[in-house]
Amino acid sequence: MDIVTQMKKFVEPKSVAIIGVSRSPRRMHEVAFDVLTNLVNCGYRGKIYPIHPQASKIRGLKAYATITDAPGDIDLAVVNLPRDSVPGIVKECVSNGVKAIIIITQGFADANDAQGKQLQRKIDNVIKGTDTRILGPNTFGTANAFINFSSSFLETQMEKKPVGLVCQTGVFFLSPPGLEFIGKTIDLGNSSDVDFSDGLAYFEQDAETKVITLHIEGVSDGTRFLKQANQVVRKKPVIVLKTGRSEQAARAAQSHTGSLVGKDEIWDVVLKKAGVIRVSDIEELGDTTRAFYTLPLMKGRKIGIITWTGGFGIMGLDACQRFGLELAKLSSLSIDRLNALSPSWQDIDNPADIWPAVGIAKKGSLLEVLEVTVKNFLDDIEVDAVLCVLGVFGPTIGIGLRQLVERTAKSHPDKPLVFYCYGPLRDEAKAGLEKTGKTLVFPSPDRAIRALEHLADYSEFRMKC
Amino acid sequence: MDIVTQMKKFVEPKSVAIIGVSRSPRRMHEVAFDVLTNLVNCGYRGKIYPIHPQASKIRGLKAYATITDAPGDIDLAVVNLPRDSVPGIVKECVSNGVKAIIIITQGFADANDAQGKQLQRKIDNVIKGTDTRILGPNTFGTANAFINFSSSFLETQMEKKPVGLVCQTGVFFLSPPGLEFIGKTIDLGNSSDVDFSDGLAYFEQDAETKVITLHIEGVSDGTRFLKQANQVVRKKPVIVLKTGRSEQAARAAQSHTGSLVGKDEIWDVVLKKAGVIRVSDIEELGDTTRAFYTLPLMKGRKIGIITWTGGFGIMGLDACQRFGLELAKLSSLSIDRLNALSPSWQDIDNPADIWPAVGIAKKGSLLEVLEVTVKNFLDDIEVDAVLCVLGVFGPTIGIGLRQLVERTAKSHPDKPLVFYCYGPLRDEAKAGLEKTGKTLVFPSPDRAIRALEHLADYSEFRMKC
Repeated sequence: MDIVTQMKKFVEPKSVAIIGVSRSPRRMHEVAFDVLTNLVNCGYRGKIYPIHPQASKIRGLKAYATITDAPGDIDLAVVNLPRDSVPGIVKECVSNGVKAIIIITQGFADANDAQGKQLQRKIDNVIKGTDTRILGPNTFGTANAFINFSSSFLETQMEKKPVGLVCQTGVFFLSPPGLEFIGKTIDLGNSSDVDFSDGLAYFEQDAETKVITLHIEGVSDGTRFLKQANQVVRKKPVIVLKTGRSEQAARAAQSHTGSLVGKDEIWDVVLKKAGVIRVSDIEELGDTTRAFYTLPLMKGRKIGIITWTGGFGIMGLDACQRFGLELAKLSSLSIDRLNALSPSWQDIDNPADIWPAVGIAKKGSLLEVLEVTVKNFLDDIEVDAVLCVLGVFGPTIGIGLRQLVERTAKSHPDKPLVFYCYGPLRDEAKAGLEKTGKTLVFPSPDRAIRALEHLADYSEFRMKC
Repeated sequence: MDIVTQMKKFVEPKSVAIIGVSRSPRRMHEVAFDVLTNLVNCGYRGKIYPIHPQASKIRGLKAYATITDAPGDIDLAVVNLPRDSVPGIVKECVSNGVKAIIIITQGFADANDAQGKQLQRKIDNVIKGTDTRILGPNTFGTANAFINFSSSFLETQMEKKPVGLVCQTGVFFLSPPGLEFIGKTIDLGNSSDVDFSDGLAYFEQDAETKVITLHIEGVSDGTRFLKQANQVVRKKPVIVLKTGRSEQAARAAQSHTGSLVGKDEIWDVVLKKAGVIRVSDIEELGDTTRAFYTLPLMKGRKIGIITWTGGFGIMGLDACQRFGLELAKLSSLSIDRLNALSPSWQDIDNPADIWPAVGIAKKGSLLEVLEVTVKNFLDDIEVDAVLCVLGVFGPTIGIGLRQLVERTAKSHPDKPLVFYCYGPLRDEAKAGLEKTGKTLVFPSPDRAIRALEHLADYSEFRMKC
C-alpha cells in the first residue's frame, strides 16, 4: 500500500474501532476522559465500533466483544488499554486486516523501565513484515476538522482551515493560545512507526492542506525526513518548531518520546538548507502559520509602515532591523501625494505618520486619509507589503476598516496588508478585520514584521527553486 | 520649587485650565476629539476652568475669556491651540502664576520647517528664569487613575495599578494590547523641558507607584538621567523600552520628538550598568511590568517546571536556555515524594510531567496531584520559582486552581508561581487566576520564563546594592 493511502486510514478513516472503552468513562471536573464520548461529540459521521468484552451496547452504539467479532471494514483501530495488553491487541488487529492502529497508551519507549522498552519491541515485531502501521504509542492520534473526526480522549479544538500539523504532543489538540486553527493533526507520540516523513507525504498530496506545520522533538530517520521536506517545500510551505534546543532539553525530549535528537546548530543548518521555515516558539508558530494561509507571499523585503503615531513607527523600524526587512524608499510620486495631505510643517515619508494629516483633513475622516495613504503605498512598486498601526476608537470605524481591506485585497491581491491595533475597540476591530480572511491583526509591530519576514524568505526560496 | 512638588502639578492637579476648547468639538466616528469632554468623562473631581474668548459656559461649566480672568488657583494649564498662538498663551500663563503647562499642539521641534523650531525657541525663552515648567509640546500630557484625571483629547484607558509610566507617545494612553494597567502616565512628547529625569524623580517619591516603566526614544541629558535612574532602581524597579535601535530608526526618533538619540549598543551598556531592566518590545514591556507588580522577586535563577505534557516541559527548558534561567535540581526528598504519585514505569524529575500520575490517581482529581507537586517544588530549597503548564478542561477546575494559588501564595509568599494554560477554558482560568492578584498566566512558556528572568536579574542587582 502506498504511503498516502495508508495515511488516509489514519487521518480520513471511514470506520473506527475503539478498543478500550469503558461503560462509565472516567470523569474529572465534569469532563469525560474518553475517546468514544469525544468522537461522538465531534459529530463524526463514519462508522464507530466500540470493542468491549461484555457490553452489547455502549452509549447507544452496538459493541463487539473482540475486533474479530466486529465488521471487517475497519479503517482504523484506536487502542487505549493498559500497556501489557497492547501487543496482544495489535496482533489481533493485524490478523483481522486492520491496516492502521493508533496506540494512545503511555509507558513504552517513553517509560523509564525495561518492561516498557520490551513491550515496544514486541509491538514492533508483531507488525514487522505486515502492511499494518502504528501511530504512537503515547499519542492523541489524529484529528480532522473536515470530517469531524478526533481520536483524542479529550475535547479537540479544530477548525476547517488549510493547515496540516504533525506534532509530538497532544497539547496541539487542546487549544493552545494562538494555535486554534488546525485543520488536520497527526500526533506521532513516540513515533515508533509512522513518522514525520509519512505525515509530510500525506499533507503534500492533501488538497485541503495549504500550509504544513511540524512540532519536532526528534526524528528517527533524518536523511529521509530532510529529503521529503525538501520535496514538499517546493509545493507548500513547511513551518517547523523544533524543540529540545539545549542538551538538557534534548535529553528530556528523548525521555518524553524515546526518539533520536540532534545538536540544535545542526538542525538550524539542515532545516534552512531544506527550505523549511524554522520558528522559535509557539507564538511564532501560530503567527507564521496564520500568515501563510491568510496572506499572499511578500515578493521582496521592502515594507511600508503607516501609523497614527510616530512612536510606533519607530518600533516598526526596530522590528525591521531585528527580523531582516527593509524600509521601502517611496517613489517621489507617492511622497508628493502624501505631502498633499499633510500640514505644511510635515515632510511625510516612510514610516508615514498620518496623524497630522488627519488633524487637518477637510472631510474629517480618519479613514479617508488612511485609505489614500494605503493605496499610495500599495501602488508603489518599491513597496512589497504594508503594516498599519492604528488606533480604533469610534464604534463605526470598524466597518470602514473592513471595507478598506476588502477593496485593497481586490486591487492588490499580491501584497500583504497587516495591522497592529490599539484603542478601546481594538479587539472588535481585530475580529472584524480577520473575518475578511484577507488580513491579520498582530499583537505587536514586532510580531507583524516577523511574520512578514517569513513570507519574504519563503517567496525568495520559491523563486530560486 | 522642588521637582516633586512641581511634577505633582502635572500629575495630581487640583485645578486645570483648558485653553483651546471648542464649543462643538470635532467628532470622528462618533468619538469626540476633545480634552474637556474626556476629562469630564474620566470622572475628575478637581476644578476645571475652560478658557474661551466668547462663551460663558461650555458643556455646563463656567468658561473664562482668558487665563487672566480665571480664578488664580490654577495648578495646570492644558494648551491645545494652533502652534502660532502657543508662545503668547504660555506667556499669559506665566504672568498669571501658572507653574505647569501641557502643550498638546504638534509642529514645534517635531516639525520639518524652520518656523516650528523658531516657535519652540520662543516658548523656551518665555519660561527661562521662571519657575513655570512645560510638558511637551506634541504630547497627550498626563493621566492619573488615582484621581480620574487625563489631559488626553481621546478616551484614556487607565487602572489603579502601582505602575508609573514615562513615555514619548500618546499610544500608551490608548490601550495598546497587554499594557492596559498604567496607573499614572507622563507623556513627554518633544520633551522640550520636563524630561525622563523629572518623571523618575516624581515616581521615586510617589507612594502609589511600585514599578516604573519608561518608553524612551531619546534623552537630552544622558548623564543626569542615568544618575537619577541608578538612584531610583535601589528603591523600585525601572523597566525601559528604548526604541530607535537602528540608525534609520534613530533618525526617525529624532524627527518624531526632536530629542537626542545615541548608539544602541551604548544604551545597552549604560542601562545595564545603571541597574535598569531593558526590554525588547511592547509585549515584553507589558509582561515584565505585570510580573514586577504582581509577583515576588525570584531570589535565584533555579526554576521548577510542572506540566501535564512532556512536550511543553521541553519548550520550558528551551526557554530557560534562551533567557538564562537554570533548571532546579530537586532534592531527593522531593523526588521520592513525586515518584510515590507516579506509575512505576516513570521516574519523575524536573520538568515534572504529572499526566501519568493523574492517570493512576486514586481520588481521580487532577488538582490533588497538582497541588502536592506544586507544594513539593515550592518547599524545595533548590527551587526559586515554579511554572505550571496546565490544560483547563472542566468548568469546575478553575475554582480549584484559584484556591491552590491562594494557599500557595500564603505558604510561599517569597517564590513566584506562574502558569501557561491551554484547553477550552483557558481564558476563564486566566481571568480567575489573575484576579487573585498573586499569579500570572502567560501566553507561552517562553514569555513566562522571560518575565521570571527579569525578576531574578533585579533580585540579584538589589542584593549587590
